[in-house]
Amino acid sequence: MISAYTSFQRIDRLPDALGKEVTLNGWVYDTTGKGKLHFIKLRDGSGIVQCVVFKPNVSEEVFDTARSLTQESSVQITGTVRAEERAPGGVEIDVTNITIWQLTSNYPITPKEHGDAFLMENRHLWLRSTRQHAIMRIRATVVKAIRDFFDANGFTLIDSPILTPAACEGTSTLFETEYFDLGKAYLSQSGQLYAEASAMAHGRVYTFGPTFRAEKSKTRRHLTEFWMVEPEMAFFTLEDTMDLAEDLVEYIVQSVVRHRYQELSTLGRDIAKLEKIQRPFHRLSYSEAVEWLNKNNIKLNKKQPDGTEIQIDFPWGEDFGAPQEEALMQQFDKPCIVHRYPAEVKAFYMKRDPHSPKLALAMDMLAPEGGGEIIGGSQREDDFDALKARILEHHLPLEAFEWYLDLRRYGSVPHSGFGLGLERTVKWISGAEHIRETIPYPRMIYRIQP
Amino acid sequence: MISAYTSFQRIDRLPDALGKEVTLNGWVYDTTGKGKLHFIKLRDGSGIVQCVVFKPNVSEEVFDTARSLTQESSVQITGTVRAEERAPGGVEIDVTNITIWQLTSNYPITPKEHGDAFLMENRHLWLRSTRQHAIMRIRATVVKAIRDFFDANGFTLIDSPILTPAACEGTSTLFETEYFDLGKAYLSQSGQLYAEASAMAHGRVYTFGPTFRAEKSKTRRHLTEFWMVEPEMAFFTLEDTMDLAEDLVEYIVQSVVRHRYQELSTLGRDIAKLEKIQRPFHRLSYSEAVEWLNKNNIKLNKKQPDGTEIQIDFPWGEDFGAPQEEALMQQFDKPCIVHRYPAEVKAFYMKRDPHSPKLALAMDMLAPEGGGEIIGGSQREDDFDALKARILEHHLPLEAFEWYLDLRRYGSVPHSGFGLGLERTVKWISGAEHIRETIPYPRMIYRIQP
Repeated sequence: MISAYTSFQRIDRLPDALGKEVTLNGWVYDTTGKGKLHFIKLRDGSGIVQCVVFKPNVSEEVFDTARSLTQESSVQITGTVRAEERAPGGVEIDVTNITIWQLTSNYPITPKEHGDAFLMENRHLWLRSTRQHAIMRIRATVVKAIRDFFDANGFTLIDSPILTPAACEGTSTLFETEYFDLGKAYLSQSGQLYAEASAMAHGRVYTFGPTFRAEKSKTRRHLTEFWMVEPEMAFFTLEDTMDLAEDLVEYIVQSVVRHRYQELSTLGRDIAKLEKIQRPFHRLSYSEAVEWLNKNNIKLNKKQPDGTEIQIDFPWGEDFGAPQEEALMQQFDKPCIVHRYPAEVKAFYMKRDPHSPKLALAMDMLAPEGGGEIIGGSQREDDFDALKARILEHHLPLEAFEWYLDLRRYGSVPHSGFGLGLERTVKWISGAEHIRETIPYPRMIYRIQP
Repeated sequence: MISAYTSFQRIDRLPDALGKEVTLNGWVYDTTGKGKLHFIKLRDGSGIVQCVVFKPNVSEEVFDTARSLTQESSVQITGTVRAEERAPGGVEIDVTNITIWQLTSNYPITPKEHGDAFLMENRHLWLRSTRQHAIMRIRATVVKAIRDFFDANGFTLIDSPILTPAACEGTSTLFETEYFDLGKAYLSQSGQLYAEASAMAHGRVYTFGPTFRAEKSKTRRHLTEFWMVEPEMAFFTLEDTMDLAEDLVEYIVQSVVRHRYQELSTLGRDIAKLEKIQRPFHRLSYSEAVEWLNKNNIKLNKKQPDGTEIQIDFPWGEDFGAPQEEALMQQFDKPCIVHRYPAEVKAFYMKRDPHSPKLALAMDMLAPEGGGEIIGGSQREDDFDALKARILEHHLPLEAFEWYLDLRRYGSVPHSGFGLGLERTVKWISGAEHIRETIPYPRMIYRIQP
């Protein structure tokens, strides 16, 4: 049984209190007035409601208080809830009393346009704006959908460590820290290896936490600290895994449409496009994708030894970049999984395709509407000798991977998994222009504040 | 709609398949045999089932395969599900076929006793043992209960950053890393300040992620990396917050009792004691607690200048240590909240008690059965001048806290919050002896592997 905790009402619950007197606590989002009427738009985090101060109904003091209110002043407002069809929540407040917690002066973020740097510097205040509020609620709903999906499908949450002794894929993009007398520790780029070990104990697991890449990328799609969910499944083939990835993404998008319709509308998102994100999605092998690119004359810009660029047919074996992915996705209004990439361009732990050893049993999911890559995954190499050879080929320190090799020594099984980037997914679904809007306190190469 | 993904069955679903032929994938937990009968205990992460190989029912090859199986060999077993009252899940498998994925030799963790260091070194394998499996599932259930509780009570999840520019409470116990050209970044010890900023945007928020303390503590209660959930509520008083904390802890414990009864039994936990964790809990002011200690003759060991120790009455103003907390909790079978501590021993951001300015509006929740402190929280200082003075008194760098002071410049409101340590909570509920068993890959002063 959950207590009420407080004596005041939340704005999102007002429709249940029609005709009743309520007390609200919140911040002034906007005010206007004319003659005997003064309107206060009050926000409390759960919603926004219009509070109407009608001079004949209140003391002179209360009316003066109403007129003195400034943007982001904090107040307690008492009044009666009445139906008002034109209002967003269907109600407004007929005010009887106002008490000021704090009268705010010179709130830095005004309705006028502000520069990016200024807004980022004031992220702790910018979060109060309607648009950022909507994106954060969508983010929370995406997280909940992900966790509910896995919890309901027999997965056990296994938190992987952030402080790790060695790198999953090279050390060039790692943050490092001194770890007592044990030398250096590195901030995890991926929980995958730990998820694999845990899948041998729990069958199906997922890790979901922050991951770190000290990359000097300045794109609209890169953060140095971002959240990633990584399911890992014993006895799953690549095909099973693609099915799972499609189900997950459909479930996430439809959860947001169902629970965050209002926020999507606030953002001006085309919701009809999201409603279409239903299985089956599109699937293309890498080779089919290359064929499509060349048939559609999507060229690759190739730098020549003299520094000039020429345009060439896309060569089989090259990894796709953003231009190829974008061209490919122009034709689709649903996500597309590209699978079976050249092993050369993929990570050492991926299993080779038994039908074609030049291919890795890898898959990426690309989102439509410029959403880009939101998922990367694979079936994992489960053969001890093959994995060991691959570690040596990649010049990785064998000793650091002995525990990982143990999974192929003791009861090795076919298994697969993938990683879904939370912020890229929120960016796509919310239609945010820049990934910095999809995480409460973004960290980028030039940003560690506030 | 969620797909089936795989063609094999999970052990926890076998009761739905009575009389049917199923295929299972898993690992051999144990085998015994006698004459024409061979028994295989198979685990697949979802459960354990006994598979019975009866010689007349199978080919000679299959019977020989059954007899060859070793601990942690990975296998695929086909057979018919039949009711067996004495079995844990109420079913067993009448085997018709066995295929080996990998025959394991020399699995390092045998049923005999192993030393702590050895088990920690092999944590990636140790997780497969029944006891560790049970604790990890309890942990996952605690996490789910926490998130469900807040999501259902109007809280918005706001992930606070791990990489932070400054320390919340001093820098002596911080991990640090180079952050591009921006100097040093520190791994977060608490998301509280960010939660406070976010509560001004969303009303009620919670952060839930890993936190870090580079403490050289070697106790059974300390990790360098641990998970903490931190709710923060605008317009909540200390009293509201104590109510919330009690509700949360009751909800967590009863969720585990409901969903993890079997795992608690596996661990030999006294479940009746957990069933009693129902509101109202006990509450004592710090002053009442001191009075109780002295009335019950619980002395404080005080070091003298010459190095010897004497026992003295517990002096008002001193912080409680583990001995005082343990003595206090001997009398209770439910958690106890101790509130209104001397401001001197508490953090700079806590609001003073208006009735007694020597007291901070702080509260700690102590768990019974030696569970210790699982929650620490407070009402926050919401007055700009008081907070600024406190920052200066504590010799903290004012500039680093300007953004935090903004919350008291622009629409300051009463607000409160607390932090609940995930691993300490799991330790108490599961009855684990050491906190290292409550997190998949523990990090301690002498442990960063695997």
